[in-house]
Amino acid sequence: MMKTIFEHRSIRKYKSDPIPAEVLNQILKAGTRASTTGNMQVYSMVVTTSSEIKEKLWECHFKQDMVKTAPVVITFCADFNRFNKWCKLRNAEPGYDNFLSFITAAIDALLVAQNVALAAEENGLGICYLGTTTYMAEKIIEVLNLPSGVVPITTLVVGYPADIPDLTDRLPLEAVVHYEKYNDYSEADIEKLYAEKENTPFYREIVRINNKETLAQVFTDIRYKKSDNVAFSKSLLRVLEKQGFMNNQ
Amino acid sequence: MMKTIFEHRSIRKYKSDPIPAEVLNQILKAGTRASTTGNMQVYSMVVTTSSEIKEKLWECHFKQDMVKTAPVVITFCADFNRFNKWCKLRNAEPGYDNFLSFITAAIDALLVAQNVALAAEENGLGICYLGTTTYMAEKIIEVLNLPSGVVPITTLVVGYPADIPDLTDRLPLEAVVHYEKYNDYSEADIEKLYAEKENTPFYREIVRINNKETLAQVFTDIRYKKSDNVAFSKSLLRVLEKQGFMNNQ
Repeated sequence: MMKTIFEHRSIRKYKSDPIPAEVLNQILKAGTRASTTGNMQVYSMVVTTSSEIKEKLWECHFKQDMVKTAPVVITFCADFNRFNKWCKLRNAEPGYDNFLSFITAAIDALLVAQNVALAAEENGLGICYLGTTTYMAEKIIEVLNLPSGVVPITTLVVGYPADIPDLTDRLPLEAVVHYEKYNDYSEADIEKLYAEKENTPFYREIVRINNKETLAQVFTDIRYKKSDNVAFSKSLLRVLEKQGFMNNQ
Repeated sequence: MMKTIFEHRSIRKYKSDPIPAEVLNQILKAGTRASTTGNMQVYSMVVTTSSEIKEKLWECHFKQDMVKTAPVVITFCADFNRFNKWCKLRNAEPGYDNFLSFITAAIDALLVAQNVALAAEENGLGICYLGTTTYMAEKIIEVLNLPSGVVPITTLVVGYPADIPDLTDRLPLEAVVHYEKYNDYSEADIEKLYAEKENTPFYREIVRINNKETLAQVFTDIRYKKSDNVAFSKSLLRVLEKQGFMNNQ
């Protein structure tokens, strides 16, 4: 397992080979072994293989090819719908239509997703997370018929890799770990922690082809722009309202 | 690794043995290999071993003993502070003070946390997630000195198990998996999916000692009450505002 964790890379090119049913079953089961709050299991996994529905998801996910070419797309959802239905059948009044409950269910869904990702890799499959899930939650809800109490949080495409890229870089461990309490970063710390990343030929080339002065500007001006983030924030908050997670009084 | 995933149980009793530095380092590094949005790594791990600070965290986490007895407590945070500081030093204007950015960073932090949890277990350690992290985020921010742009999302206690409990139950796989699209549950589905869980001697005893009619009432009336959820929702939204994640215009 340590090997699987340390050799993880996101796979963006897939063979057309399907995933055998028993392998798929095993990795989904691995998901269910993750910890969840109070063992309530307030998540769902929607497993899509139909090319017709994958085509619609592909449109949601900014038309990234891997959504169509990977044999399996799994949408991980925060899901209080099942639990609420159970409570109502059992003479119990659920109080899970609020923001805290959404976060609780999102946490469940994400721990499950990472178990599924690692179990897939352990079985020779490749995966890629789709961050577009929260941006496009409104449309994904339509495509997958998600009822009230259910919000998509992340998506994995899964399949046999057609191309295995190099490992990607990481900041040095001291950039992301604090001991005892949080030790805020000085300018000198930031300079030191980002130096290696900024000076690789790979990132220098990215700055050049994007016609920017710095790598940070590639993020702020092109990849993750404020105007997009604000628009997606509004739509995600609207989704929470609509799916019944914003009754906070 | 499949064995590690399938044998996971939450450990609540710990030996006092410390975690060797090289083991701790290895499991934190395993965390950093998780996928993050755009490889921005917008999370932090705060590793607390000091008994003085653990005592304060113990108060935050509803005085659960394991926070004091486990040798290491790791608080996983959504963290745009480091990235924002880097942007500002690089003539780039960060647009990450909004709700979408909080969710993006929370997703990063949770995938990292599950890698750390599994790497710990692979190394013979036990772990337990503390769901109280989001309930008590306001106080944890004070205890750990978390600056603007940083919100605690989950916590792991980690150490060598003093007691290994039985595996806990899970709903049948078909309860949490949907094929192609979401297939909403009928009353008959709910009856069938929860039957095994409700009829175990373990849960029957929980209903009895809590003096309730149904297991669902133990959740709604005692463990996860609406009034608590509403109060925690309000405080978590206040935290997002205060930490600079609610500028959605």
